[in-house]
Amino acid sequence: MRLDRKDLLEIEGLPGEEIEKILDSAVSFKEVGTREIKKVPTLRGKTVINLFYEPSTRTRTSFEIAAKRMSADAINISVASSSVKKGETLKDTALNLEAMHPDCIVVRHSSAGTPQMLAKYLKCSVINAGDGAHEHPSQALLDLMTIKERVGRIEGLKVLIVGDIAHSRVARSSIHGFSALGAKVSVCGPPTLIPHEVEALGCKVSYDLAEAIKDADVIMMLRIQLERQGRSLIPSAREYAKLYGLDVEKLKGAKEDLIILHPGPINRGVEISPEVADGPWSLILEQVTNGVAVRMALFYLLIGGPHE
Amino acid sequence: MRLDRKDLLEIEGLPGEEIEKILDSAVSFKEVGTREIKKVPTLRGKTVINLFYEPSTRTRTSFEIAAKRMSADAINISVASSSVKKGETLKDTALNLEAMHPDCIVVRHSSAGTPQMLAKYLKCSVINAGDGAHEHPSQALLDLMTIKERVGRIEGLKVLIVGDIAHSRVARSSIHGFSALGAKVSVCGPPTLIPHEVEALGCKVSYDLAEAIKDADVIMMLRIQLERQGRSLIPSAREYAKLYGLDVEKLKGAKEDLIILHPGPINRGVEISPEVADGPWSLILEQVTNGVAVRMALFYLLIGGPHE
Amino acid sequence: MRLDRKDLLEIEGLPGEEIEKILDSAVSFKEVGTREIKKVPTLRGKTVINLFYEPSTRTRTSFEIAAKRMSADAINISVASSSVKKGETLKDTALNLEAMHPDCIVVRHSSAGTPQMLAKYLKCSVINAGDGAHEHPSQALLDLMTIKERVGRIEGLKVLIVGDIAHSRVARSSIHGFSALGAKVSVCGPPTLIPHEVEALGCKVSYDLAEAIKDADVIMMLRIQLERQGRSLIPSAREYAKLYGLDVEKLKGAKEDLIILHPGPINRGVEISPEVADGPWSLILEQVTNGVAVRMALFYLLIGGPHE
Repeated sequence: MRLDRKDLLEIEGLPGEEIEKILDSAVSFKEVGTREIKKVPTLRGKTVINLFYEPSTRTRTSFEIAAKRMSADAINISVASSSVKKGETLKDTALNLEAMHPDCIVVRHSSAGTPQMLAKYLKCSVINAGDGAHEHPSQALLDLMTIKERVGRIEGLKVLIVGDIAHSRVARSSIHGFSALGAKVSVCGPPTLIPHEVEALGCKVSYDLAEAIKDADVIMMLRIQLERQGRSLIPSAREYAKLYGLDVEKLKGAKEDLIILHPGPINRGVEISPEVADGPWSLILEQVTNGVAVRMALFYLLIGGPHE
Repeated sequence: MRLDRKDLLEIEGLPGEEIEKILDSAVSFKEVGTREIKKVPTLRGKTVINLFYEPSTRTRTSFEIAAKRMSADAINISVASSSVKKGETLKDTALNLEAMHPDCIVVRHSSAGTPQMLAKYLKCSVINAGDGAHEHPSQALLDLMTIKERVGRIEGLKVLIVGDIAHSRVARSSIHGFSALGAKVSVCGPPTLIPHEVEALGCKVSYDLAEAIKDADVIMMLRIQLERQGRSLIPSAREYAKLYGLDVEKLKGAKEDLIILHPGPINRGVEISPEVADGPWSLILEQVTNGVAVRMALFYLLIGGPHE
Repeated sequence: MRLDRKDLLEIEGLPGEEIEKILDSAVSFKEVGTREIKKVPTLRGKTVINLFYEPSTRTRTSFEIAAKRMSADAINISVASSSVKKGETLKDTALNLEAMHPDCIVVRHSSAGTPQMLAKYLKCSVINAGDGAHEHPSQALLDLMTIKERVGRIEGLKVLIVGDIAHSRVARSSIHGFSALGAKVSVCGPPTLIPHEVEALGCKVSYDLAEAIKDADVIMMLRIQLERQGRSLIPSAREYAKLYGLDVEKLKGAKEDLIILHPGPINRGVEISPEVADGPWSLILEQVTNGVAVRMALFYLLIGGPHE
């Protein structure tokens, strides 16, 4: 049974039951990736376009593998080899792609709101694969799936998100997702990287990582965008690591069954030490595996399943 | 039944019956794109290589979707990530690709004559996806298909092509295509962008757009290559728009059932105003849809159908 | 029956029987490329990732075609559009890709040893598609296949490898392959491009091409990397051509049934004259055809065949 929506643009406003439906579907698709023949005919004859205006290995590959394992035709368009340079408007690009009758366009763009705009113009499904600092909904869904798989539930968990909250679409999607399923979210990071609005979303704010860790069931580390250093929001990678990098020392005060997530790619020795990234708490690679399953579920629920 | 030729290199010299055969086939393939399962097994086990020496979103995507909807394996090679930088001759690249037994190579190149040269050396089929300012035959075919679908015929229509005739492979292919099917072609644009030879092809030349429009059944606007401004062939984009941009004002003298085409990507507000591009006359998106159908037909008639 | 190994990383140390097994398998897969329907279902539901950190047309295309003709899903990742720029370690990239459950990662990298490192970390199969100046095993295998196909055997043949031995991964793989199957390898080139270690591998060294040719059953020309000229290892392309370029004049002293190979892309007029490249001795294009067959065989023997 399909979701009662055409697009997946953001977690904000997505009802908990819809999130649960996606997660349940993802659990059943995850099994496909472990088979000898990792392929189901569900989306045969469907066309998925991956329209990436920002470079990406893992997200594009994850969507592409998800589409192909469901027997869809996947078409990749990346900005470097695309006619966007020729000055066509994004809307025209999208309308032109839609005229070729794709079933779903997966879009990543550096400008927040791009997928929303496309979804408004297009009759086909649109999945937001990350738009500026706004949202990255499939990432939040795979995080939820990974935690639920390990802990058995989301409700009541204490989740700590650490790092550059202000510029993170992952943080924004996750905060909405955890809240919808009844977890309590705190955030921690340098004051320059914590936006004021985060308290309005119901998050406790802390600037002391060692202290904030003690209470957490789940820590989600965010990637520090070293590319952004020029803007002087953090003093240096070394200083950042000392204050907000997760290492074994800081974990000493943590709960015994703490689990740690990171959306990747990780900066070893900056926001996370190698011992932590590779340690027993870490579910980082499980997140990647679940990413394919979540994206298969999204394709199924948006363009593959029978209409009600 | 296949076409009685190995390659599709240009519309010039293509007999009207062959054009009609391609258009008829495209009409039947168009229906595939509207199915729930947009896939036919016609080209299963065939290999199509998209060899693009110029960047392209829409044309490459259109050929790729066409190939995949017919179950062919599509391989994309774009110049940026290719060994052409290593100094290999184009002929050697082509012979090497052919040694991998593709059934068809779709080629776009900035040099006129490249597809012809490849076709001479290769035993596999070659489709010209645009060569310099020479021809872009599949574009002309999709234009013909779009007009015929709307009007019911090509013969006797008065077609006006507007813009940079001198540098347009689309114009060149279209002039040959319209002539072969019995339409009358006029061209209109700044004197610097109208080549002398165009009158030898039987086209009436005009420099006054408002006047030229009155008589037309079909207007085909060409994209103005703003990249070429440096060469001072037109004064400025603004001035060009004023003189040769199609807007609602200029359309006042037009026939009531006028239809308007544009090969895309469009420069809104330069050669075409948004009101015209999105208005009821415009078949621009229909052209894109028909592009996939025409390319499916070309694959079928060159490499897929039974030999006579 | 699969090979008794997870990866194909190098020819060095590969037993002659395993090489023969791969060549035999390649011969049987070669036939697929000549069928009307060039597709077998052998790898349906398998996922192959082509992870290329160096640009490549022919090798990537060959692996991609091989995978698709066996019905595998092929995913291309090239460095230009990849997150490696974001500073993630290669190991993390690989572990993340593996978490998506590919069956095989084909990797090309400018650093020798990269595929070995990945293979150690990954449970999935790794094929070395060229690592720095170390090895390019599938190239050596297709050379062996091509020679064996023409001559009927490798054992006892006198093979002459000409050019930049020092920087050639092709030379290194070939020397090991020919030795394992009982051919005698000599090398010839400018002293600056012949490494000392080559004699330790059992190769006779010569600096006089016309002289060295006389004895050879097979000549394998190497591509001269004109990009490396800056490092002044050879005086000029013209001088190189005069001394070490293979032309009809130098071939006058050769055996009548001599055969000539080149891994491509060729520099016409530098290391090989057009007459020689296109002449009856040349098996250059046959090498390319066999490349697809060898790569199909590798996929089959590493990830496709039944375990013993």
